[in-house]
This record gives sequence, structure tokens and C-alpha cells, in this order.
Amino acid sequence: MSYVIGIDYGSDSVRAILIRTSDGQEIAQHTHYYQRWKEGKFCKPAENQFRQHPLDYLEGLEKTILGCLEKAKDVPADEIKGLAVDTTGSTPVAVDKTGTPLALLPGFEDNPNAMFILWKDHTAIEEAEEINDVSRSWGGTDFTKYIGGIYSSEWFWAKILHTIREDEAVAKAAYSWLEHCDWIPAVLTGVKDVHQIKRSRCAAGHKAMWHEDWEGLPPKDYLQLFDSRLAELRDRLFRHTYTADVPAGKLTKEWADRLGLSEDTTVAVGTFDAHAGGVGGEIEPYSLVKVMGTSTCDIMVAPFEEIGDKLVKGICGQVDGSVVPGMLGLEAGQSAFGDVLAWFKGVLLWPVKNNPALSDELKEKIADELIPNLSEAAAKLPVDANAIVALDWINGRRTPDANQALKGAIMGMNMGSNAPAIFRALVESICFGSKRIVDRFREEGVTINQVVGLGGVAKKSPFVMQTMADVLDMPIKVASSDQAPSLGAAMYAATAAGIYGSVNEARQHMGNGFDKTYQPKPENVKTYRKLYDKYLSFGQFVEENT
Amino acid sequence: MSYVIGIDYGSDSVRAILIRTSDGQEIAQHTHYYQRWKEGKFCKPAENQFRQHPLDYLEGLEKTILGCLEKAKDVPADEIKGLAVDTTGSTPVAVDKTGTPLALLPGFEDNPNAMFILWKDHTAIEEAEEINDVSRSWGGTDFTKYIGGIYSSEWFWAKILHTIREDEAVAKAAYSWLEHCDWIPAVLTGVKDVHQIKRSRCAAGHKAMWHEDWEGLPPKDYLQLFDSRLAELRDRLFRHTYTADVPAGKLTKEWADRLGLSEDTTVAVGTFDAHAGGVGGEIEPYSLVKVMGTSTCDIMVAPFEEIGDKLVKGICGQVDGSVVPGMLGLEAGQSAFGDVLAWFKGVLLWPVKNNPALSDELKEKIADELIPNLSEAAAKLPVDANAIVALDWINGRRTPDANQALKGAIMGMNMGSNAPAIFRALVESICFGSKRIVDRFREEGVTINQVVGLGGVAKKSPFVMQTMADVLDMPIKVASSDQAPSLGAAMYAATAAGIYGSVNEARQHMGNGFDKTYQPKPENVKTYRKLYDKYLSFGQFVEENT
Repeated sequence: MSYVIGIDYGSDSVRAILIRTSDGQEIAQHTHYYQRWKEGKFCKPAENQFRQHPLDYLEGLEKTILGCLEKAKDVPADEIKGLAVDTTGSTPVAVDKTGTPLALLPGFEDNPNAMFILWKDHTAIEEAEEINDVSRSWGGTDFTKYIGGIYSSEWFWAKILHTIREDEAVAKAAYSWLEHCDWIPAVLTGVKDVHQIKRSRCAAGHKAMWHEDWEGLPPKDYLQLFDSRLAELRDRLFRHTYTADVPAGKLTKEWADRLGLSEDTTVAVGTFDAHAGGVGGEIEPYSLVKVMGTSTCDIMVAPFEEIGDKLVKGICGQVDGSVVPGMLGLEAGQSAFGDVLAWFKGVLLWPVKNNPALSDELKEKIADELIPNLSEAAAKLPVDANAIVALDWINGRRTPDANQALKGAIMGMNMGSNAPAIFRALVESICFGSKRIVDRFREEGVTINQVVGLGGVAKKSPFVMQTMADVLDMPIKVASSDQAPSLGAAMYAATAAGIYGSVNEARQHMGNGFDKTYQPKPENVKTYRKLYDKYLSFGQFVEENT
Repeated sequence: MSYVIGIDYGSDSVRAILIRTSDGQEIAQHTHYYQRWKEGKFCKPAENQFRQHPLDYLEGLEKTILGCLEKAKDVPADEIKGLAVDTTGSTPVAVDKTGTPLALLPGFEDNPNAMFILWKDHTAIEEAEEINDVSRSWGGTDFTKYIGGIYSSEWFWAKILHTIREDEAVAKAAYSWLEHCDWIPAVLTGVKDVHQIKRSRCAAGHKAMWHEDWEGLPPKDYLQLFDSRLAELRDRLFRHTYTADVPAGKLTKEWADRLGLSEDTTVAVGTFDAHAGGVGGEIEPYSLVKVMGTSTCDIMVAPFEEIGDKLVKGICGQVDGSVVPGMLGLEAGQSAFGDVLAWFKGVLLWPVKNNPALSDELKEKIADELIPNLSEAAAKLPVDANAIVALDWINGRRTPDANQALKGAIMGMNMGSNAPAIFRALVESICFGSKRIVDRFREEGVTINQVVGLGGVAKKSPFVMQTMADVLDMPIKVASSDQAPSLGAAMYAATAAGIYGSVNEARQHMGNGFDKTYQPKPENVKTYRKLYDKYLSFGQFVEENT
């Protein structure tokens, strides 16, 4: 018997699961919520500043692994062969020569700029704009070409540029920068030289403009256009990257003791959560895995033969091996998915929340029941080509063609348009947003035959999923695992540990299969085609007027 | 001492007020709710069929006048010199040769087509379209030219055409047709020949395409294009019309006895409620009187010297003497005003209404407090050119350029857009709708210097009124009278009875003045100009895509 551990660092918490490699059976899982983060430390939501302290991550690592082992006392430590980590991203941190985040060094303990800059931190909007302007106008290679042609404020270089301009102390002390998913394996395997840390292909390719075409990171003469310090930094970053099936090393004695694991445990190179989720969701060519939560991450793999040299415009990136080694990994996503419905829920709850006559308990009950009740009522409404049309851009638009300035909108209401009718339009809008991504992939020559749904919304809302199938006119499968990213990490771990020869082989043995398939209803497909046309023209108007 | 009675027939109830002519002091008022209407009889809201039984009107006439007199026992009957009626409109009814509504005749008692077709009945949408098509294409005079160029399904000819096509029995029995405001004075003065009934200039000019330019109603060769029966009907309708300062006659002995009034009481020619409201709101040239309720009626008077032969495009009509005899009366209006806010209230109350854990009493309390609470919270938000923009077309658009197919819309929401922010945008949208009407008047050469607000919203919502002043960049005065239409009717009555020589003179003595003036705030005016531009371009998009 052998086991592996998959560790999934999310935005609010980290979860570890212990998996049996022979059949993917989950033996134990444990979740830890970041303490400092929960207290709101180091963040300024009004300015979109979101920072996480490295100690939150280290504490979470220890707590979740010990928690798992506590629940699985029968499993001998030496049968746990591998461990892999996925994290959010781009979530970079400034580090010293040893790869230690500055916030762990004296003088930087409480400096948010010395901490991890969480993916959803948008303090670098101006720098992202600058990167886009320069990339299009400087006359050389457009280094954004493999990441959809638009650089985001959520990403590596924009965040570094913003930080070194804003914080002289951090700029001076930062020998290099690491992604969260690079740091954890380095810690566990005891790498003390930042140059020796094996960097994630997924993070580097999707967020740092790393590509073999230009031998790694963009060259100095390009980086020089932003800041000479960025150009100097290049040599202190990295040239090579590694896929998540590659071992980063073995556990150090110190960490093996601390976690109750064997020093023989292989630690895989880290990766991003959605990409691990794609693997956990048993991704295969021509299927789009959508991780559906407050937003979506949409992950595809495609054989090189299909894409060749083609650039897929307006998505978040196409990176060799970022999901399944040996295949091109493609990433897209919707800035708001569940958040669109959560926004409407918040609007509707205003009269309840602000009413002193209602108990907190009752308010909570009304809040909890609202989306299920709306879904039930909305599902009874007919699919109607003359119905309300909404735009799902309440958080801007991630893909296709990132534009964070866009906003949500609703049109077509009359006196009879009640809350369920609007809710229905909002559900349709997030499915139209998905269709727009699927359409873009297809326009760019990438085949998509089916969709796999992961995450909270996929599990909890048959109404959303059926609407998605109808709008996309494709079957939608829902993955059985509640924890696809950590299951995917476990598959990477099993491969890195040599239990399986490839991620595909690991997937075949360890996959949890699918719960349910939603089939498109032909009568709805037709009507949604008309509504989708309205969505597109409404979108065009709003985009031209933003 | 002398007194007059003003009777205001609204959509749900009729109200009489007894007024002292020397100073306009209100001595008594009494309201009666239509019994059959309250029970929902003869109406099909889903089909927009709204009919009212003549007995509801007669019962209301008796109850309200007796109710007033009961409360004013000191006032001797012979000091009550005059009585005038205003009603909703166009609210026509099929009548026999004596002017009796068919529903009062055997065999028609329960036939909705033999009853008054209430202004908001929209069963004649197809007929209105036909009238518009023919009027533009037949090659002769465009008889819609003095009513804004677009004929509405709410109006006289469309309703008649629809009814005679739908109901053979009514078509055969209908010798002629009367407006509600024509029928009541005829009843009270005992006119037994429909040809002798003095028709309201206001109703005929605004709704029946009556104009002196073509010697009354449109000619037979035009009416023939719709239905030969319509052409035949022309001779059984009317040639002449009368302003509301003209006596229709004196009370019959029967009605004088029934109501406890003198036979010497003068009954004025009837008119429409909004126009009477304009007079009660002390209308003067260059001021726009807005009757603000669920919808608005916007009334202006202008000297002929100003308008001359000019046609004011896209409004509801320009009629000699429809408000103040001797001046041109102009009518416009918004299909939804308070209704826009009522719609949003209904949306927000969905979680409350459908919650069995809340008592009916509590639900009602939450509902009653909602608009005041939203107004308070919304008023605290800054006026922001980047804020949400809404379209107020939740009931279509009445003016400028009637288009009942238009619908409401909202754009510019992000995750922080809460209920008060949306409410604020909706309030701004109804003010923008008002500005659009003001702009149209001005573009067409009609000066507007100030706005007078009447009705529920004007009295109850300082937030709406201040926003209106800021958006219009004009002072907005709120009339003191709660009952401007019945006060206006009383002024007509006093003029018809010869107590005053003109409506203007009556107004000077009997006016109740103004409560409050809202002055525009210059800092808001500027911002609203930008938001209004967005409102216009958003509107253009929605209109082109409806």
C-alpha cells in the first residue's frame, strides 16, 4: 500500500487530503483557516490590497498534515510516499538570497510589501497598464503573446514593479521573488539557495511571461524599459521551470520530524490550484474543466499537434505542461461567477439586514435560504427569448480579452420582472460568459467537446448546471470529488514519487469519476442562441461606453 | 358667501371637495372607492383589460357629495353655486342615442365592452399601431400632428376600433361614444340627446384627434380606411367642443333633490384630471406642472404667440384651451414614475414576502418602511458621474415619442453596488425621464422656467424632489394643496358659475399657494449633466435593440 498527500492552499484556508494511490480513495482531510488573514491583517479591501503572511502558510502546512495523520492512525508514515502543493497565483513574495520571504526577517515582520501579494490584490493596476502599453509599442517581441496578449495587475511582474517603486526598503532587501507554490516545496525540501529552487512551469508560464521561445523570462532590454532594477532582477530570478510531476526533492529531517512523515517522502514541484483541479477533475484533451466558485478558472489541455504555433487570443495563457506534462495547458476564467449571484443576494437582503425587528438568527436563515429559494422559483420560469438580459461583469472581465473596468448590467425589465426573473437572467449571464470563452477557444482553433464542472456551484446548483448545458449546447459532467485541486495535487505527488509513470496514468487509477452529467435540452438551446446574441450586443454597447 | 364643489374621478376612487370661492379654503372633502372595481370585476390585468362600470361612478358621485355636505352642515345649499368634474382619460364608453352607457341597458349589464374603458386599458395596441401606420402613409393630412405624431392604445379611436371589431353586439348597439368626463355633466344636467351633450375640449383635442384645422374630428374618408363603421360613427359623435369654464347646464330637479343641492347649481363642462390639476397647481405660462404619482402627467400652458403654428413633436398633445381657456394647453408625461421605485420595492421584498417565518404585520411594516429607508440611505451617497445609470422605461415610454415596447434597464454595477445605490440610480432615472421631456419642449421652442410638483411623490419625497431640481437645473415648487385636481375643478366651477370672470381670476383668489421650493445645487447640476449623457446613449442602445 502507498499513500500521498495533496495540499491545496486557497484564498482563505489550506486543505490537506491523504489519498490511497491504488484507487484514489480519500483516507483523511483537514482544513485550516489562516489566522492573521481571518483577522483582516495587512489588507486594505477598499484599496484592493490583499496580503498574506508566510507564517499563515507554515502554520497551515503543519496543522493540516498533522490533522490528516491524526485521523488516519492506521496509515504508517513510511507508506506516505509523496506530497504535492498547489496554491493560488500569481501570489509572489520578495525573498532574500536563501529564498526566505522578507516578512520572516527582522524589520519586515509587519510590512505588507514583504508578504505574499495575494492573487486578487489589485494595487498594481497602473503597472499592468504600463506593461501592456510598452509590450505593444516597444517594437520588439510581444512577451504577452502566450498569455492572451493582455497583462493583468494580478500578475508577477506588475506586482514586483509596483512594490519596488512603492517600498524602497523592500526593493533593496529583495534579492529575488518567489511564487507561493515555489516557496512551500523549497521549505519542505530544505533548499537554502534561491537559485536552486525549482520554479513552477505553471506559475512562470502563465504569470511571468516565461517561455522557451525567448529562453526563459523576458530579456533585460525589455525589462529595462520599466525600471533598471527590474532588469537587474532578471539574473536573480530563474531560467528553467519544472512541471508538477517532477520531484523538488525529499523532506528534510526537520520537516519529516515536525510532520510525522518519513524523510523518504518525495515533494513535487508546486503548481496552481486551478491547474491541479483540472487534473483532479480528470481533464482530457477537448474537455474544458471549469472550477466554479465565486469566480471560475477554466482549464484545458490540448495536444501540441492541434495548437501548433497558434496563439489563442484573449485568454490567460497557453503553457507547455502547466496542467498535464507533455500537453499544452490553457487557462481562461470568469472574474465573477457565484459572485454575480452573491451580489444579487446582497442587494435583496438589504431590507432584512437593516431591520432591527429581526433576530440575527432569522436574518441568517433568510440569507442561507435565499439562493436555493430563488433557484427553485427561477427554474420554473420559461426560457424566453424576450426575457431580461444581464451582463456578468460585476467584477470586470477576465477572459476573453481581460478588462477589469467593465461592470454589470441588466436590461429588459417591466413591472412584472420580479426577483426570480432577475436571478434567472443573472444565472444565464454567467453561462453566457462561459459560452463567450468557449466560443473564443473554438474561434482560435481549439476544439471543446464537453465541460467538466468542479467546485461549490457545480455541486450545489443543478439549476446553474442545467442552464450551462443548455447555453453551451454541450454535456456538462460534474466531478465527484469535492476536493479536485488537492486530489490533483495528490496525483502529481504520486507521479513525482514514481508510483505512476505519468500524470495520465495516475489519473486513470486515482480518479474519483463523475456524479452526474447534464445534457442540453434542444428546445432551450435554440432560445438561448437568441438571448446570447442580445447578450453580445448589450456587452458591446457597455464595453464601448466604459 | 359662495361655495363650489370640485369632483375628481381617479383610477381607484372619486373625491369631492367643497371649497369657499372667496379664498379657496377647503370646507370639506369626501372620498369613495369604486366597489365593483375594488372587487376586480370586469378586468383582466394579464391582458391589460381594465373596465369600470358606470354605476361605480354614479354611486361615487352621490356618496362623495352627500359626504361633503354632511361634514359642512353650516353651508346652505343655495350658496353652493357650481360644480365641476374631472376624470381620467381617455376613458370612453359606448352609449345609446340618449347618451346612456350600454352597461346600464338590459342585456349589457355584465359586458365589459359596454363599460368605460379605463385610460390604462391596453387591449387596443394593434389598433393604435394601425392608426399610426395609416396616418403616416395614407397621403392626406396627418391627424396625429397635434398630439405628438403618435397615437396611443390608451386613446379614444383605438379603443372604439378595437371594441367594434371584437364585440358585434356592442358595435350594433353603440349609437355614439362618450368620454367619462362628458357623461357625468350630461347626467347631472339631464341631457337626453347625445348630440346635445357638450363635449370636453380637453378630451377631444388630446385623445380624439379633434381640431379646428379640419373642422372637428378627422373626416370620413380617413376613418373609412380603418372600418366603414368608424366613418359612419363620425356624424353621431360631435363637431364642437367646450372648455371647462363653460356651463354645461344646471342641475336637474332629480339630482338636486338626490344630492341636497339647489337646482340653480351650475354644472361645468368636464375635463381631465391632470389638466384640472394644472389649474389647481396654479399653472402659469412657462411653468411645467408635473402630477407625480405612479406615472406623471406633465401639463403646460403657453400663449399662442409663442407656439404659433409650430407642432411640438412627440408629446401627448397641444390643444387650445385644454387647461386654461385662451391659452394652448400642452400635455406630456412619463409612463412610470413612482412605479419605477415601486417595482424595485417589489423586487427587494421577495425574500420577505415569501417567508413563512414572518408575520403579515411584520411584512407590512418592512414594506411600508422600505422606500423611506432606501431614500434616506440613497440620499447619503455622493452624486457620482461614474455611478449606476438606469432607464425608467419599466412601463414603456409615454413621452417624448411614445413607445410602449421599451423596457427598464440598469448598468454600471460592481460588487459594492447595494440596494440604496440602485435605488438612487432609479430615482435619477425618473428625473432624467423628466429632463428628456423638458428638453423636448425646449427643442421645439417652448420655454420652461420652473416646475411645479403635485401629487403623492411631490409631497412625500424630498429626495426625489431635490434630485429633480438638480437634474433639471430649475427650481421645483411643491403645491400646497393635496387635492390639486379637485381644487382645479372647483376653480372651473367657480368660473362657469360666473363668480369669477376667468379661470385665471379664479386661480388668483382660490389658489392654495406653495409649500416649498427646491433649488438646484450647482455642484450636482454639473455631475448630472454627465450622467444624463450616459442615460441618453444607454437609452438609444436599448431603443435600437427593442
